[in-house]
Amino acid sequence: MKITTIAWRDNKIRLIDQTKLPDKLEYIHIDKLEDLWSAIKRLKVRGAPALGAAAALGVYLGMKDVQAKDFNAFSRALARVAGYIAGSRPTARNLFWGLERTRRVVQKNKDKNLFALKKLILKEARKIIAEDRLSCRRLAGYGSKLIKDKDTILTICNAGILATIDYGTALGVIYRAKREGKRIRVFVCETRPLLQGSRLSAWELKKSGIALTVICDNMAASLMQQGKINKVIAGADRIAANGDTANKIGTYSLAALSQYHNIPFYIAAPVSTFDLSAQSGKDIPIEERNRREVSELLFKKRVAPAGVKVFNPAFDVTPHNLIRAIITDRGIIRPPYKRNIKRVVSR
Amino acid sequence: MKITTIAWRDNKIRLIDQTKLPDKLEYIHIDKLEDLWSAIKRLKVRGAPALGAAAALGVYLGMKDVQAKDFNAFSRALARVAGYIAGSRPTARNLFWGLERTRRVVQKNKDKNLFALKKLILKEARKIIAEDRLSCRRLAGYGSKLIKDKDTILTICNAGILATIDYGTALGVIYRAKREGKRIRVFVCETRPLLQGSRLSAWELKKSGIALTVICDNMAASLMQQGKINKVIAGADRIAANGDTANKIGTYSLAALSQYHNIPFYIAAPVSTFDLSAQSGKDIPIEERNRREVSELLFKKRVAPAGVKVFNPAFDVTPHNLIRAIITDRGIIRPPYKRNIKRVVSR
Repeated sequence: MKITTIAWRDNKIRLIDQTKLPDKLEYIHIDKLEDLWSAIKRLKVRGAPALGAAAALGVYLGMKDVQAKDFNAFSRALARVAGYIAGSRPTARNLFWGLERTRRVVQKNKDKNLFALKKLILKEARKIIAEDRLSCRRLAGYGSKLIKDKDTILTICNAGILATIDYGTALGVIYRAKREGKRIRVFVCETRPLLQGSRLSAWELKKSGIALTVICDNMAASLMQQGKINKVIAGADRIAANGDTANKIGTYSLAALSQYHNIPFYIAAPVSTFDLSAQSGKDIPIEERNRREVSELLFKKRVAPAGVKVFNPAFDVTPHNLIRAIITDRGIIRPPYKRNIKRVVSR
Repeated sequence: MKITTIAWRDNKIRLIDQTKLPDKLEYIHIDKLEDLWSAIKRLKVRGAPALGAAAALGVYLGMKDVQAKDFNAFSRALARVAGYIAGSRPTARNLFWGLERTRRVVQKNKDKNLFALKKLILKEARKIIAEDRLSCRRLAGYGSKLIKDKDTILTICNAGILATIDYGTALGVIYRAKREGKRIRVFVCETRPLLQGSRLSAWELKKSGIALTVICDNMAASLMQQGKINKVIAGADRIAANGDTANKIGTYSLAALSQYHNIPFYIAAPVSTFDLSAQSGKDIPIEERNRREVSELLFKKRVAPAGVKVFNPAFDVTPHNLIRAIITDRGIIRPPYKRNIKRVVSR
């Protein structure tokens, strides 16, 4: 399927409004930083790699009209813009990585004038987009080697086209395996509360001709018990130096259940999702979101009684010992993670 | 809280329409067998013990106007009515047990006239209701001994007032523990697809003054990982002779996760839920329900793309080895289950 989740077009950020899927494929065009912030916060654009691109493009949006008297003033404005974007969502590593990439390119070009610096920021953002296209395809190439003909793969949330520029991580592996002629069946956890599984993954898997079945999150264990799942592959929002992985809430549940049923559990993510400054999962901030995401169905219909307490963490942390391997764009990382992650990621 | 889920009033079955909760507490009055069948099918009344009462009352509804020329004709009519009710939902043991109770009372009174037989059916149905009130309270008394002050208990679906006549099984244990002065906190899994946890359990727990938090089903593992859950208690729809237990989909997931996190997992159910003719879980029929329960949110809004395949089993089977104990109205049954269930249930 040929679509692009996020792009720079006609001096605007063009992105698919993912809150409208699967009902309609609708593009929105953003030329104000505040609108991007709210698009990120409200998950119109989501998925770690896509957020990396969104953050870098956002820096350009926020900086393109800045009039600074010198480099230091420009640099301070950049820090303000980056800080503002960083406040949208705390967990996805790529968001911060995207901001950092633009900061670094500016710092390395102190001698350039403001016009040139702005151009460099946009160039860097577009480079992130171009790299993501390649990186997803490389990752898929490595990951596909783990997939056998007739495998039935369980996944959660959306780590596909819509979470990246145009190919996906966990789902990219499946697209590649299919292209290689492997007959794959996919079970998708609907992924409460916001249903990225049934809304987004089901949409793109179906468009891509993959045989898929949607289940409620609480049905996964029963399928494993019945021997119907061969492999589990999930994306990642942030991976610590020891391999502990933050991803959509429910991922840890699948990892623990995979362990219990002796099913290999894989994480698929580009190296940009690794955060070597986080020693373990304990160092990863976990976003807690609006209770209404749980107590109301897609903000439309109240289901829990008024006033009932709700817990709504958007992510959980899967400890590294439950992960059989991490599929990256630089190859497959296996335990011992601490050593092997360092070797692969910091090269 | 003083409410009665199902009762016989003014020659009609009066029941709470549970599809309307938590928005409104609405009673419906049923005087046609077909309406009862559809109320059961559409889960206006649900929960194994409540279905036992509904089935027996339904037999009376179906038989009260029957004109049969002799006992055999009456008996055949009864079999037809029971067969019709039995076709509504296949898994809940108490439904069949309720039908069987009315059949047996008729068989034991072959000498009575039709008028008397009809009276006896109604009497038996009302006896089932009276017994359930007592049985839930006895069960709660036994179960409460397992609960410590300050326990945090996780539950799924609704095994409370609304699943019985007026007290509950798993939630009855919690109500009793609270009455004994134990400070209990409860986490309730919302229980997709039909949200009996967030709609029904949250409603009655809140009305009963229990401290509760609603979570999505995929958050339970994360709470366990963080050491926030001391015990898990679930109800049951049917328990086999070896202790294997069919209950709401997602129960097995919690049981396996409890095992992985070394948290005690309990089943709470009256002896009427045991089916000694089922040797193991393999002999329990599992109802598969309408795909729209998953692909649409409460039949209101389509979330999965049109035409996507959906798997929607209403129940799963928890193998006996994951169950620490089964709390019944005749005491607590512990392993080895095959021997101990036989001893307690068939006495």
